[in-house]
Amino acid sequence: MIQTPYLLFLGDAPDQLAAKVAQGIKDWRPENAVGQFRMEGCKADLGLEDMDLVEAREAGAKTLVIGVANRGGVISPEWKKVLVMALEEGFDLASGLHNLLRDEPDLVAVAEACGRELHDVRVPEVKYPIANGKKRTGKRCLAVGTDCSVGKMYTALAMDAEMKKRGLKSSFRATGQTGILITGDGVPLDAVIADFMAGSIEWLTPDNDNDHWDMIEGQGSLFHVSYSGVTMALIHGGQPDALILCHEPTRETMRGLPEYTLPTLEELRDMALPLAKVANPACQVVGISINTQHMSEEDALSYLAEVEKRIGLPAVDPFRQGAGRLVEALDAI
Amino acid sequence: MIQTPYLLFLGDAPDQLAAKVAQGIKDWRPENAVGQFRMEGCKADLGLEDMDLVEAREAGAKTLVIGVANRGGVISPEWKKVLVMALEEGFDLASGLHNLLRDEPDLVAVAEACGRELHDVRVPEVKYPIANGKKRTGKRCLAVGTDCSVGKMYTALAMDAEMKKRGLKSSFRATGQTGILITGDGVPLDAVIADFMAGSIEWLTPDNDNDHWDMIEGQGSLFHVSYSGVTMALIHGGQPDALILCHEPTRETMRGLPEYTLPTLEELRDMALPLAKVANPACQVVGISINTQHMSEEDALSYLAEVEKRIGLPAVDPFRQGAGRLVEALDAI
Repeated sequence: MIQTPYLLFLGDAPDQLAAKVAQGIKDWRPENAVGQFRMEGCKADLGLEDMDLVEAREAGAKTLVIGVANRGGVISPEWKKVLVMALEEGFDLASGLHNLLRDEPDLVAVAEACGRELHDVRVPEVKYPIANGKKRTGKRCLAVGTDCSVGKMYTALAMDAEMKKRGLKSSFRATGQTGILITGDGVPLDAVIADFMAGSIEWLTPDNDNDHWDMIEGQGSLFHVSYSGVTMALIHGGQPDALILCHEPTRETMRGLPEYTLPTLEELRDMALPLAKVANPACQVVGISINTQHMSEEDALSYLAEVEKRIGLPAVDPFRQGAGRLVEALDAI
Repeated sequence: MIQTPYLLFLGDAPDQLAAKVAQGIKDWRPENAVGQFRMEGCKADLGLEDMDLVEAREAGAKTLVIGVANRGGVISPEWKKVLVMALEEGFDLASGLHNLLRDEPDLVAVAEACGRELHDVRVPEVKYPIANGKKRTGKRCLAVGTDCSVGKMYTALAMDAEMKKRGLKSSFRATGQTGILITGDGVPLDAVIADFMAGSIEWLTPDNDNDHWDMIEGQGSLFHVSYSGVTMALIHGGQPDALILCHEPTRETMRGLPEYTLPTLEELRDMALPLAKVANPACQVVGISINTQHMSEEDALSYLAEVEKRIGLPAVDPFRQGAGRLVEALDAI
């Protein structure tokens, strides 16, 4: 569990896109983002107050979150200087970088001397149980995709935000690095050992109030042969009551698999639902979330209308239209 | 890769069943089993020559394999004495115990001093790639089950043995501890990190001759919510051309999941085949392997006949009847 709120470290980000983790935190958990820390040459700007370490501490920030991708996969000496100062100033550090904080002996030594924590969110910090399949109280919704990176995390975050806005009980349950940094907690599922995958998701989504929804972040796709086992563990560990189908209509081949084409939404529905019913016979497919970022407004709206008519479920792009209709579909079951 | 042949360590096994790993090696790879090592009070006997360490070395044994379950999950001082002597005598050690050899400082020190290897087959020794889904040459068969522990490993071993007897090209590909100890090689799939599961199976079953079959050891079940992600990775990483359905007809609930009943063979077929076709559109279900150990001969034969008629595929118990008809079904595709 990462201590909030955060000071967002943007480093020397070469452009806005490099700071997309920080952007996600600011967009989805603005209350966690006290300010931004930018180094010389930083080309990203979240529109937050620029703060030095002392100012951020005074403003209440507890953790410096590396919200930017590093170049070349290494933590540069310039970054290192700031990270060491942050530890000395009393911040914990949190990072989703491949280059782990714990693999830097100087950071480990300073953190220990200062009594601070290093959080590498790519590495599980919990000994997860083996799944027991027992029915849990409360409700769960899982986004499943025709491919990886089609908007499953965005969909779950948008639905969670909309539910909270409406006064409904909802928790976004992070299963990947970005989601964990946004919320401060979660399971880095792709780094969990095979036998404990489904159990880690049971652990993440425990018994809850009958009218509470866990909005579980999806991973991979049943149709993506590299990661389908991870998706399977989410479907059985998550015991979803509701599935949302996610799709990106302009993509021609599966991400990273040029020999594989995407399935249709119907194929996704017909594959995912029987599998979900193994763990929860009451599971239903309730809506469709389409990522239309590469389509014009006109094309997007006509595509959504066509899908909605064809499949008979609400079909929206939550980025363009909000997640209201998906939340209403959840509320109806 | 574990050096063969083996001396099989039976320790102070309380009964024959406790030595089932050693029994598997002797049954399936008798050429790997030079002899057995029994301590005082050992109640198991494989019918192999009893040897001390020196005799076994002279007979060519290279690795002492712990072919017995340990009591209480710890390596006892009595065992330890033998294991240390074996290292000093020039043996590598191999074990599938939960209590890892590498977690015993004295064994590690002696192994290092003697230049010997400690193989904990529960722990991956290879850095596996992420699956790329590319079509590989050669053919692959995977056993999938209605539940865990219904005879998938036995089926693959029996088919592999039958194919070799007929002069066909076949390799048994181990994906669990027992299978790895039997063959000396394989992937301990349940201990692999989620992102690399499917890639580890691609690694295990590489390009091969067009008329060569990999007989892949199955794990878990698509219907077993604790382990279904592991099964999924086998189906997509293995790219099977042929599936064998495995079932144990007298079992009432899923292993370790008292709230879950077993699916029918038809439900297994209809779930597994579309998933397998994602990675290999030519995949077929070719046969059915039934574990009838808890049925009388008469009941078993009538059950097999009924299943065969109902599903329209050869249905056999390879333990009672041999795997000939399953091999013929493979050969026909």
